[in-house]
Amino acid sequence: MEIIGWLAAFLTTFSFVPQAIKVIRTRDTSSISLSMYFLFTLGISCWLVYGAMMKNGPMLIANLVTLALALIILIAKIRNG
Amino acid sequence: MEIIGWLAAFLTTFSFVPQAIKVIRTRDTSSISLSMYFLFTLGISCWLVYGAMMKNGPMLIANLVTLALALIILIAKIRNG
Repeated sequence: MEIIGWLAAFLTTFSFVPQAIKVIRTRDTSSISLSMYFLFTLGISCWLVYGAMMKNGPMLIANLVTLALALIILIAKIRNG
Repeated sequence: MEIIGWLAAFLTTFSFVPQAIKVIRTRDTSSISLSMYFLFTLGISCWLVYGAMMKNGPMLIANLVTLALALIILIAKIRNG
């Protein structure tokens, strides 16, 4: 049962890798929603605080990686429009 | 403390609303990564199964909404390229 949880965390975290690579390579962010990445980055920051308060290591690490990836996409969107 | 968790869940779930609206309105998905939404949809499906096994209502509902929104974006990407 725990394996499903780990698989879920792995997939949702690392799914942002191909998107981050795509925006870095192409510098095209025209169809990406600024509001989405603004709200998502804010939300992941809340998960990070929650994980810290719960003293939950895996939650902290997964959300730190997701935050880094989401920030790459958010910054690219702000720069390139 | 629980309020941070709820805020986190709310923000990460509903952040996909503006992206779904954007792809429906513009039909432009050129800079969106197919791999991202494929892996993300798969990951959210795992979270859904995990929430069901844990009999965790809020987890089930949040992931159902996220899955619906991610599917809208994934299908638009497959259709429009």
